[in-house]
Amino acid sequence: MQNYQQILEEIQLELQPYLHKGTVANYIPALSKVNPNQFAMSITLFDGTTYSVGCSQSRFSIQSISKVFTFTKALNIYRHNLYKKVGREPSGNPFNSLVQLEYEKGIPRNPFINAGAIVVTDALLTHYQKTEKTFENILTFIQEVSDNQNIGYDPMVWRSECEHGFRNLALANLMKSFGNLENEASSTVETYFKHCAITMNTQELARSILFLANHGIDPINGKKFITSDQAKRINAVMLTCGHYDASGDFAFHVGLPAKSGVGGGIVAVVPKKMGIAVFSPRLNSWGNSLLGTKALELFTAKTGFSIF
Amino acid sequence: MQNYQQILEEIQLELQPYLHKGTVANYIPALSKVNPNQFAMSITLFDGTTYSVGCSQSRFSIQSISKVFTFTKALNIYRHNLYKKVGREPSGNPFNSLVQLEYEKGIPRNPFINAGAIVVTDALLTHYQKTEKTFENILTFIQEVSDNQNIGYDPMVWRSECEHGFRNLALANLMKSFGNLENEASSTVETYFKHCAITMNTQELARSILFLANHGIDPINGKKFITSDQAKRINAVMLTCGHYDASGDFAFHVGLPAKSGVGGGIVAVVPKKMGIAVFSPRLNSWGNSLLGTKALELFTAKTGFSIF
Amino acid sequence: MQNYQQILEEIQLELQPYLHKGTVANYIPALSKVNPNQFAMSITLFDGTTYSVGCSQSRFSIQSISKVFTFTKALNIYRHNLYKKVGREPSGNPFNSLVQLEYEKGIPRNPFINAGAIVVTDALLTHYQKTEKTFENILTFIQEVSDNQNIGYDPMVWRSECEHGFRNLALANLMKSFGNLENEASSTVETYFKHCAITMNTQELARSILFLANHGIDPINGKKFITSDQAKRINAVMLTCGHYDASGDFAFHVGLPAKSGVGGGIVAVVPKKMGIAVFSPRLNSWGNSLLGTKALELFTAKTGFSIF
Amino acid sequence: MQNYQQILEEIQLELQPYLHKGTVANYIPALSKVNPNQFAMSITLFDGTTYSVGCSQSRFSIQSISKVFTFTKALNIYRHNLYKKVGREPSGNPFNSLVQLEYEKGIPRNPFINAGAIVVTDALLTHYQKTEKTFENILTFIQEVSDNQNIGYDPMVWRSECEHGFRNLALANLMKSFGNLENEASSTVETYFKHCAITMNTQELARSILFLANHGIDPINGKKFITSDQAKRINAVMLTCGHYDASGDFAFHVGLPAKSGVGGGIVAVVPKKMGIAVFSPRLNSWGNSLLGTKALELFTAKTGFSIF
Repeated sequence: MQNYQQILEEIQLELQPYLHKGTVANYIPALSKVNPNQFAMSITLFDGTTYSVGCSQSRFSIQSISKVFTFTKALNIYRHNLYKKVGREPSGNPFNSLVQLEYEKGIPRNPFINAGAIVVTDALLTHYQKTEKTFENILTFIQEVSDNQNIGYDPMVWRSECEHGFRNLALANLMKSFGNLENEASSTVETYFKHCAITMNTQELARSILFLANHGIDPINGKKFITSDQAKRINAVMLTCGHYDASGDFAFHVGLPAKSGVGGGIVAVVPKKMGIAVFSPRLNSWGNSLLGTKALELFTAKTGFSIF
Repeated sequence: MQNYQQILEEIQLELQPYLHKGTVANYIPALSKVNPNQFAMSITLFDGTTYSVGCSQSRFSIQSISKVFTFTKALNIYRHNLYKKVGREPSGNPFNSLVQLEYEKGIPRNPFINAGAIVVTDALLTHYQKTEKTFENILTFIQEVSDNQNIGYDPMVWRSECEHGFRNLALANLMKSFGNLENEASSTVETYFKHCAITMNTQELARSILFLANHGIDPINGKKFITSDQAKRINAVMLTCGHYDASGDFAFHVGLPAKSGVGGGIVAVVPKKMGIAVFSPRLNSWGNSLLGTKALELFTAKTGFSIF
Repeated sequence: MQNYQQILEEIQLELQPYLHKGTVANYIPALSKVNPNQFAMSITLFDGTTYSVGCSQSRFSIQSISKVFTFTKALNIYRHNLYKKVGREPSGNPFNSLVQLEYEKGIPRNPFINAGAIVVTDALLTHYQKTEKTFENILTFIQEVSDNQNIGYDPMVWRSECEHGFRNLALANLMKSFGNLENEASSTVETYFKHCAITMNTQELARSILFLANHGIDPINGKKFITSDQAKRINAVMLTCGHYDASGDFAFHVGLPAKSGVGGGIVAVVPKKMGIAVFSPRLNSWGNSLLGTKALELFTAKTGFSIF
Repeated sequence: MQNYQQILEEIQLELQPYLHKGTVANYIPALSKVNPNQFAMSITLFDGTTYSVGCSQSRFSIQSISKVFTFTKALNIYRHNLYKKVGREPSGNPFNSLVQLEYEKGIPRNPFINAGAIVVTDALLTHYQKTEKTFENILTFIQEVSDNQNIGYDPMVWRSECEHGFRNLALANLMKSFGNLENEASSTVETYFKHCAITMNTQELARSILFLANHGIDPINGKKFITSDQAKRINAVMLTCGHYDASGDFAFHVGLPAKSGVGGGIVAVVPKKMGIAVFSPRLNSWGNSLLGTKALELFTAKTGFSIF
C-alpha cells in the first residue's frame, strides 16, 4: 500500500527549485493575470479517497482539458460516425496549424488539436441545436462526471478569447469551406471558447476523470457514462495526442493518458486505479504546464504507474 | 496601319469551334446562371477610337479584375508602404491557398491572389474608415478611369458570394491572427466581395485600363491617376501574377500584362498603344476565360504586340 | 492463468475470413514474390515458454522491425546525444515524406520513419567506422537479443531495395545537405537496407523483443542490454510512432507498444509479461500487416493486456 | 540614337557607392575565392557592335545562366514533349525547395529552379546517351551561340560543387522515385554541375544571348538556333522565373527577360534590339548579383527599354 499523501508532499518539495521557471500564457489578457507561482496536485481513488497538496481548491481555466469532455460527449452521441468529421492520429504539427488541415481537406487529425475540438463542438451544436443549450449540456456533463453542481465558467476569459480568436475563426471557416462545419463559424467558435473558459480546481478535475480510469463507469457512484471501448479510445487519443507536439515526450516521461490545458492544468488517468490532476500556470516551450509535467513524471517514477 | 476591326472579326470567326468548351464558374449560384456561350472583345486606342465584336455592351461580373483597380487605388494612397502588407512575387500555389500564407506569417505574396486583394481592401477600409464610403470610393475610381458614371454592381452576386465565402473568411482571419488585417474580417471580406460584384462590359473595361498603357495618365482626357513608376509596377505584377497558376503560360501565349476574373472577363494592356478587354464565361482548368485567353493569343500573334 | 495456446488457436480460427484481404508490398520484386496467404503468431513468456500458431518457423523479411534494434543499439552507444540527430515525436505524415524533414531542417521527427532510421544507421556507421563492421554489429546484436546465432539476411531483398531506393537516397542527401548525416549517403542507405533485409520468424521475433518487456534485461538469461529508462523510452516511441500514420489507431485497437514492417511482421511488447510476434504479408492501407493487426487486437481483447 | 558607351560609363559611376554591398556566394570554397569587388557590363547590338565597361574580359562561373542554354537545347530536341517533365510556371518558393516537388509528384515547376534544370540535363543525357558526349554538346552549343570556340569550364568549381551538392542529389533522387529522371541521379547531377561550371565573360555572354532577342536567329551570322515561338517561350520563362523568388521584383525594376547565376552574372534580352550581360560577384538576399540588378535597372531607366 502506497502512502499517496507522502508521495504528493515529496513531489511538492522536490519541485520548489522549478517554481519560477516557464511562462504564463499571455495571448489573452484574462489568462496572463493569474498568479504564476501556484502549484496544486490531487489524486482521487476509486473509493473516493482524495489526496491533495498546494492550492487544490483554487479554480483555474481548464481550457483544452475541456476537449476531453466534449470529445466524450460527442463520441457518446455520434459513436463511430464522429470519425467522419475528425481523425484519431497524432498531428506532428503545432496545435493550431492550418497547413495540415488544408492538405487533408478540412478533416482535422484528432479531437485535441484546435480544429478537431471545434469540429467536436460543431457536432454537439448540431445535436442540441442552440448554442445556449449546447453549452448547458456540456457544462452539465462536466458537473455529472465531477458529481458537483457547482462548476461554472469565467465570462471574462470567454470574452477575452472571443476578441482574440482569429486563428480559430480561420480554422472554422476553412473547415466550413470544405463542408466540414455544419453551424455558423462564429457561434461554433464562441461555444468552443465558452467551454474552454470553464473553471475547476485539481480536486474537481481528479474526480471528474475517474470514469476514464474505470472503463467508462464512475467507480464511486456506479453511473455509466460511456462504453468500455469508448473509454479505451479516449485514453489512447490522450496518450498519443494529449500534449500537442510534445505528446511523444510526455508518453515517455509520464507514461499515462493525459490532457493539458494552456491555463496550466493537466488531468491524467491511471487505468484501473485513479484520476490525477495538477495545476501550475507557468508553461514549458510546448505550451504544457512545466511543473505539472514534472509532477506527473515524479509521480509515475515513485509509484511505478507508467503504462510502459 | 493595322485594320483592328478586321482583326477582331477574324478572331471571332476563328474561335467559333471553341465556343462550347470550358465550364462556367459554379461556386455561387448567381454566377452559374449566366449564358455560357457569349463572347465579346473590345480595344480602345489612345485617341479613344474603339473597336468591338460580340456582345460588347453586355455587362458581366468583373470579379478579380477589380483587384487591378483596388491595387492601383491603394498604391496611390500608401505608396511603398503598401508592400509592408502585401508582396509582389508570383505565388506558385492555387489562388486561395492558406499554406503559403501561414508559412509567410500572414503576408500574401501579391495583390492578385485572394489574400492579397483582401489585404488591399483592408488598407482602403482603414483609409476611408467606413465600409460604405470605401466601396463608394472604389466604385468612383472605376467610374473615373472608365470616364463613365453609369457603372454599378450586382447585389445578387454580392450576397451570393457573402453566403459562400468561407475560405476568404479563413484567409482574412488568418491574416488578422498575424496582425496583418486592421479591420473586422467579415466587413473586409464583404467589401472585397462587393467590388468583385461590379459589372462592366468589354467596351467599358478596354477604356478603363488605358491609363496603365500610358504611364498612369488617361491618354484621352489627360487625367493623371498614378505615377509612371506605379503604372510600371502594376503592369509587372499583372504580367507575373495576373492569371493565378497559369501566369507563366499566359505570359508566353499572350505576352501582355493582363488580369482575368472568374466571371469570364480579361483586361490586357498593350504598353504605349491600347487597352483590351475580352469576355466569355466558360473557363479553362486554371479558372481563366478559355475563349478570352485564346482571343488575346490570336490578337498578339496577328499584331505582333507581344512584349517578347 | 490464461491458456495462451488456446487463445492463439482461437485467433487463428477467427481470422480465416480475412486471410485474402489486403495487398502484399510490391514496391520491390523480391518482396512481392512471397506467398501472400501466410499467417503465424508466437508469444514468449519470461520463463522462455513459447506458444505459436501458423508458420511460426518460416522466416520473412523483418524490414522496419529492424529499426527497433538499431534504435536500441544507437541509444545504448550515444545515450541522450542521439536526440540531437533524431526526435521522438509522432510525425503525422506518411513515413517517407520529405516535406516535414525540410521544414524541420533535416532532423527527422522519430527513429521509426525512414529518415529517422537512416540517421540512426548513420550514427552506428560513425561508431563502427566501416559498413561491413556496422552491419555485423547490428546483426550480432539481434542474434544476442534473440539468443540465436543463426539469424541472417536475404541478399536478394537487399539488392532489390538498393536498386529502387531513390526516395531513401533523397532523404539521406537532404539530411546531408543540412549537416545531419556524417557518412556517405549511398553507403548509409545501403547499410540501412541491409538490416531491413534481415529475416526472422515469429518465434525468433517474440523471443528477441523480451528485453523491452523487462526493463532492458533479458528475463531468460539475465543479460542486461539497456537501462530501464531506455527500455521505457523505446516502448513509448513504439506506442506513439510504431505504425506510421496509423499509430493512434493501433494504440486504441491494440494498446501495446509495437513495431510493424512492410514484410508483414509486427512485434509487440506486453510490459512485464511477454513478447509477441505476428506475421502475415498482406498489408492494410497504412502499410501494416492486416491480419497481424487484427490478431494483436483480438489478443489484447481476449487477455485484457491493453495498457489502457 | 542612344550613346550606349556613355550610358554604361554613367552606370558604372553611379554604382560606385554600392561596390562593397552584398555577399559573395560561399556555399562552395571555389566560388568564395573570387575577388568580390568586380564589376563588368557589356551590350551587343544586332550588327555586332559591342560596348563594355569594367572587367568585361574576365571570365567567371556562369552557374545558373547555363540553364538558359540547356533549356534552349532540350526544347529544340524535344519540343512540346519537354513539358511532360518540367513546367513553365513561377515557383513561389526558394529555388531548391523539395516541398513543392513532392506535392507536385516530382514534376518541377520550371526549368530554372534547380530541380527543373536537373530534369533538363537528364533529358539531354537521354538524347546523347553518354555524360561526356552530353556535356560536349552543351558546351558546343554555347560556343556556337557565342560564335567562340574558346569557351570552357572550371574543373575546380565543378569538383567543389560535386562534393557539396547533397541537396541537388536529394532533388534528383526524389524525381527518380517519381519516375521523372531517366538517368542515374549522380551522373545527371554531375553533368548539371559541369555545365554550371562553364566560365564566360560579359562580352561573350552578351553576344551569346542575341539569338533570343531576334526570334531564335543569330542576327550577326544568320544562323537559326530555334523557332520564333521557342524564343518567345524562353523569354517568357526568363521574365517570370529568371530570378528565383525575386522574379516579380526584377520584372518591375528591370522589365526585361533575364537570367541570373550565383556566380554574379546576369544575362538580359532587349527584344529586337540587343543582348546584355553584367557581372559583379556580391549577391543580394535573393541570390542575384546586387550591382548587376541595379545596373540593369539603371540601363532600362536610361534607355526606356523596359517592356512595360
